[in-house]
Amino acid sequence: MDTLTSIFKRRSIRKFTAQAVEKEKLDTILKAAMAAPTAKNMQDWEFLVVTSEEGKKKLGFAHPTGAIAVNAPLSIVVCSNLEREQIAPGYFPQDCAAAVQNMLLAAHALGLGSVWMGVYPRPDRVSNIKAAFDLPANIEPVALVVFGYPAEEKADQNRYDSAKVHIEQW
Amino acid sequence: MDTLTSIFKRRSIRKFTAQAVEKEKLDTILKAAMAAPTAKNMQDWEFLVVTSEEGKKKLGFAHPTGAIAVNAPLSIVVCSNLEREQIAPGYFPQDCAAAVQNMLLAAHALGLGSVWMGVYPRPDRVSNIKAAFDLPANIEPVALVVFGYPAEEKADQNRYDSAKVHIEQW
Repeated sequence: MDTLTSIFKRRSIRKFTAQAVEKEKLDTILKAAMAAPTAKNMQDWEFLVVTSEEGKKKLGFAHPTGAIAVNAPLSIVVCSNLEREQIAPGYFPQDCAAAVQNMLLAAHALGLGSVWMGVYPRPDRVSNIKAAFDLPANIEPVALVVFGYPAEEKADQNRYDSAKVHIEQW
Repeated sequence: MDTLTSIFKRRSIRKFTAQAVEKEKLDTILKAAMAAPTAKNMQDWEFLVVTSEEGKKKLGFAHPTGAIAVNAPLSIVVCSNLEREQIAPGYFPQDCAAAVQNMLLAAHALGLGSVWMGVYPRPDRVSNIKAAFDLPANIEPVALVVFGYPAEEKADQNRYDSAKVHIEQW
C-alpha cells in the first residue's frame, strides 16, 4: 500500500475479529517499530508482545480501556529502557511515539487495524503495567498498542487545519 | 512509494541541494502531520514553516545543529498548543512525535530527505526558539524538522534487535 494512502487512511480501530495476527505480520510490525529514528540513535525501545489470555487479562486490569486489549488478538507494550535513555535525557516518549506511529502505519498496510492507548506519563497506568508484567525498574512502559483484523469500518477523516500552519512567523 | 519501503528505507538526511521544496509537497507534508493520531484526539499540534533566509538564520542560532537548517530549503518547527494539551495532560511530546514521523515518511515518499532535530524538553532549545520567533506563551516548540532534496546517499540500516522483543513476559 502506498505510503501516503496509509498515512491518510489509517484510523484508530477498536473492534477486531477473532482471527490471530500471523507471526510474519507481527515480525514486520516489530521491524517497522525499530526502523524509527531515536534521539542520538539511542534505540531505547523495548517491546512486550501479549497474545495469551492471561496476558490480555492483565492488560484489561492495568489500563482504563484495557478491555479493548482483552478482546483483541495482539497487544504490544512499547517501553523505554531508561538506562539507554540517559544518552539523550528526556527524549524517550518521543522515541517510543515515533516507533508506535511506524507500527500503526505498517499494520494498516498489512490489512490490520490498530489503536494506540496512552500509558506514560500517567503514573497509575505506568505502575499497573510494570506490576502486572513484573518489569525491571529501568523499563518504563510508554504506550499500549492493540492490533487485529478490523471488525469495524471507519470513513476517512481530514484533520488538516490551515489555521495551524504559520508561515515564517506566528 | 510502498509504505513498508518508506518505513525501512528512510534515513536521516542532513545535506541538501539548493532546490526549493515545491508548495504542493510542503502541503502534503503538513497534511500528513495532521493525519497522525493524538491523545483524546486533541490535535494540539501547530506548525511553523521556515524558508526565508532570515528565519533560517534564527534557527541556526537557536539550535546547536541549526546549521543544517541554514543550509536547507525548508524547516518546520512542530509545536504543541499547551492550552489544547490540557485535554490529555502530558501527552503533547508523543502527539508531536507521531506527527513528525508521518512527516518524515511522507517526505521520503515524495523524494525528499529530512532530519528530525530534538527541541523539547531541552530548556535552552525551547527558550531560544520561542524567543527567536516570538512564540506565544502557550506554544511549546517540540521538534525541528529539516527538509530538502538529498545531497547525500545512505545505505539501508537494519536496527532490528530480537533481544528487544519480549514474548508474554520479561
